[in-house]
Amino acid sequence: MTYRAPVAEMRFLLDRVLGFDRVAATERFAEATPETVEAILDQAARLAEDVLAPLRRAGDLHPARLENGVVRASPGFGEAYRALADGGWVGLAADPEFGGMGLPVTLLECLNEMCSAANMALSLCPLLSQGQIEALEHHASDELKALYLPKLIDGTWTGTMNLTEPQAGTDVGAVRTRAEAADDGTYRITGQKIFISWGDHDVAENVSHLVLARLPDGAPGTRGLSLFLVPKFLPDADGNPGVANSLKPISLEHKLGLHGSPTCVMEFDGATGWLIGGAHRGMAAMFTMMNNARLGVGVQGLSQADAAYQMARAFAEERKQGKTPVAGVETISGFPDVRRMLATMAATVATARGICLDCALSIDMATATGEPAWAARAAFLTPIAKAFGTDAGCSVSDLAMQVFGGMGYIEETGVAQYYRDVRVTAIYEGTNGVQAMDLVGRKLMDGGAAARELLAEVAATAQAAGGDLGERLADAALQVKSATEWMLASEPNDRFAGATRYLRAFALVLGGHYLLRAGLADEARMPLARFQIRQLLPEVAALCEAACEGAGALEGCGA
Amino acid sequence: MTYRAPVAEMRFLLDRVLGFDRVAATERFAEATPETVEAILDQAARLAEDVLAPLRRAGDLHPARLENGVVRASPGFGEAYRALADGGWVGLAADPEFGGMGLPVTLLECLNEMCSAANMALSLCPLLSQGQIEALEHHASDELKALYLPKLIDGTWTGTMNLTEPQAGTDVGAVRTRAEAADDGTYRITGQKIFISWGDHDVAENVSHLVLARLPDGAPGTRGLSLFLVPKFLPDADGNPGVANSLKPISLEHKLGLHGSPTCVMEFDGATGWLIGGAHRGMAAMFTMMNNARLGVGVQGLSQADAAYQMARAFAEERKQGKTPVAGVETISGFPDVRRMLATMAATVATARGICLDCALSIDMATATGEPAWAARAAFLTPIAKAFGTDAGCSVSDLAMQVFGGMGYIEETGVAQYYRDVRVTAIYEGTNGVQAMDLVGRKLMDGGAAARELLAEVAATAQAAGGDLGERLADAALQVKSATEWMLASEPNDRFAGATRYLRAFALVLGGHYLLRAGLADEARMPLARFQIRQLLPEVAALCEAACEGAGALEGCGA
Repeated sequence: MTYRAPVAEMRFLLDRVLGFDRVAATERFAEATPETVEAILDQAARLAEDVLAPLRRAGDLHPARLENGVVRASPGFGEAYRALADGGWVGLAADPEFGGMGLPVTLLECLNEMCSAANMALSLCPLLSQGQIEALEHHASDELKALYLPKLIDGTWTGTMNLTEPQAGTDVGAVRTRAEAADDGTYRITGQKIFISWGDHDVAENVSHLVLARLPDGAPGTRGLSLFLVPKFLPDADGNPGVANSLKPISLEHKLGLHGSPTCVMEFDGATGWLIGGAHRGMAAMFTMMNNARLGVGVQGLSQADAAYQMARAFAEERKQGKTPVAGVETISGFPDVRRMLATMAATVATARGICLDCALSIDMATATGEPAWAARAAFLTPIAKAFGTDAGCSVSDLAMQVFGGMGYIEETGVAQYYRDVRVTAIYEGTNGVQAMDLVGRKLMDGGAAARELLAEVAATAQAAGGDLGERLADAALQVKSATEWMLASEPNDRFAGATRYLRAFALVLGGHYLLRAGLADEARMPLARFQIRQLLPEVAALCEAACEGAGALEGCGA
Repeated sequence: MTYRAPVAEMRFLLDRVLGFDRVAATERFAEATPETVEAILDQAARLAEDVLAPLRRAGDLHPARLENGVVRASPGFGEAYRALADGGWVGLAADPEFGGMGLPVTLLECLNEMCSAANMALSLCPLLSQGQIEALEHHASDELKALYLPKLIDGTWTGTMNLTEPQAGTDVGAVRTRAEAADDGTYRITGQKIFISWGDHDVAENVSHLVLARLPDGAPGTRGLSLFLVPKFLPDADGNPGVANSLKPISLEHKLGLHGSPTCVMEFDGATGWLIGGAHRGMAAMFTMMNNARLGVGVQGLSQADAAYQMARAFAEERKQGKTPVAGVETISGFPDVRRMLATMAATVATARGICLDCALSIDMATATGEPAWAARAAFLTPIAKAFGTDAGCSVSDLAMQVFGGMGYIEETGVAQYYRDVRVTAIYEGTNGVQAMDLVGRKLMDGGAAARELLAEVAATAQAAGGDLGERLADAALQVKSATEWMLASEPNDRFAGATRYLRAFALVLGGHYLLRAGLADEARMPLARFQIRQLLPEVAALCEAACEGAGALEGCGA
């Protein structure tokens, strides 16, 4: 029951369903030829399967520890991180000027899915570096770029995001950490941050923190926040780690899962930092990092879904428990309810992967072409990728445990770890409720253009397929279109009341679209499309009906 | 954020929704007057809140340990168990002839919900005793009853169920444990059992095991199994624990949750046992215990749902994170998506409690009146109570964690423990898939009479209410009725493919029924009924559609 990276699945999805050739046809990504894609995915699979996966359980059993003010990572994590960094994987999509490979984000997300499926706790560390790299590429001064980007891209240093404070979680504007200008152009950062993933560790020589703080003249709320780069060790004249900065991890959280990822409370006590992106412009810079991170977290959810599904399927095809109704099948995979669970898992994984990689592809097309429609498509798909991807991780790992039965509740089996690890993905980087609000709020502010365009693509797939499945998919897409128009015509509070259901309905319809396209391209895949459309898609009507009732539906329920 | 036993909710449900006065009107349960009910529930609440709840986290942090062949329970559990036993709570519904109170199972389940909500790991111990008491009352010889029942009922001894073996989980018929007759009328039991909850411990002086084993002339499969009573210590001439029997716990499982409940691998090495219920009649006796236990496990699920909901609601009404759209509400309970989660939790808890207590009431009416219709009603509701109650525990504790956000992922908060502890309830005592198969298989073998009668009750409620809500509920009940007829006309394999969805649809319609009856009795409760019917009930159509597609829907999905 070892993790196998789904290279063939990914290539099929890219080539036959999503039209990745469009990315490779751009000048910007001309290097992403089929040969390069194949080589990259195969090598990434080796890294994930051979280096990262064997350490997954060690991270769970032997969490990172805080010793004498320094965090010690789980056994083996240092070597594995080094292998990942030395392969150039952190900077797969980063600017070649600073040592990156400059490849499409679509490939980066394939890599990230594999690494995270193999070892989510460890791979969260380079994921955070990737977010910081993107933020610095867009918002840092040339001097800071030259100093930090090569180190982050080659993995010598790692990056973190320092947003949350005890009173400031979803409400970022409540941040109290202060920044004051020093005489030399730097700033002094003072305050406490919580939930800082990989906030300290010993797998790399330096940690570069991006910290949200308020300057003395910063307005209350988010408008008054600025972003600072605050390294653990101040770089010396040669750019090497020099004097220790005035910051430290003061404790580690005891979490439900993800034990291999040290979650730090960080204390900044007049630490030296550099402004990124201009005074009071912190949120803009932060959002660059967060959009990347939201897709990345969706992929984390997807990764756990696929890994848990793989494990459950292997178990179901091995475990015998009585006589099944299917001739020749002696394992529990012959029982209808087990088959229902496995098919649901397969369809959910395929839907999540379709959404995540379609989102990544849109980012690449936006980068390569500069066309606002691609950027809007990416922006619209991002909260869906984050929320549906992570919900998929939770629901599929839950089904995986159910397939295992009593054995699943025993930690030695390893399936419970997926269930525990993935749960945080529905919470961090903006809870899934926040994603849904983003979708029906900010992401419909284009008047619904991106939504309508996506639904038109779904309708085109439905028409190409025709027949019962085509009709059902077209009908579901129409329902989501009506819900979209209802959202556009409604007050924010009414939209928000239905936001979570609307997001899920949209995701399910997209799932029908990707799966049916896959079925049209390869008839062996049609049964899963049929299952998704006939067994899962009926939920769309219920979701849309509930989504369009408005906030009145919630009145007086005793909450 | 302390657990508060829902005494007022329970009394309202019993008196105004379920018609518990019908139970009290029987001769058998004439003692269950409103005054007695009130006194019992109030005292049970004190036990749960004051004695059991304070130890919940201790059980999680300090699991039971196996030391020198003996299991040591979590700190404080011995005293708390003693308080529970000394209060006479184990035998609340047991035969007064042997020291029980002889009160209705309906009250027992109210007690069990409170105890389990407060401390599921500890309360699982007396829950198993209750199941054994019932099995012995029905199937044991008078000698064994006289010896064991008083000890189990007053809690001096505790009971266990020994069914599962590594190769025999859902497939009970694969049991390999052997039994051989000795010269003195007893038997020698040899074999290994796994997943034995409270299989050994130090909170009571003896442990009475009910063990499923096969006699030399036992046929293969379930038909050849017999049930044996196998005590840890053989009773001496005075009925006190004497010589140690040849059995022992050989290891404890490391589980996702429920750490305070020792889950033992038990080894029986020619242990002395007594036959219960006749040779090769083990399954019949086992089912007596299992039906009781299945409802009990459904109540465990309900209990965790309510406790997690209470915790989340308290948090949401205290936590501030930005400006909410509701005037005067500064806490996150003002945000529509949080209100949606809290309302969903409230409606789900109310549905689960309605189903569980309606099932219990049917058991009591069957006992008191001997009418087969009541027994059939109880039998039909049992798998729904088990599966929906435990699914409710899982989904509501999941929502509770989501309401907590990042704080929920930290173990110190305590909400993650509900999420971990409750997960096993969807697995043990027959997985929820097995419950669904039982519902559409065995429980429809009456030709659908029990199902139709329940749906007629729902229709009556809908008609009494009238208006939009009544129409919607009537419509949903009709859909479930059609699905019922489809099931009755279909092959087992096709039924089983839709079983899980059919069970959920039935449960949701029952939820509408209970909540609408509550709303009709008390208009302050109508908004929650409206929420359930307008926001949750639309799922019924999707469930019924998918439930009635047959096994063909699962063909070729790559599982």
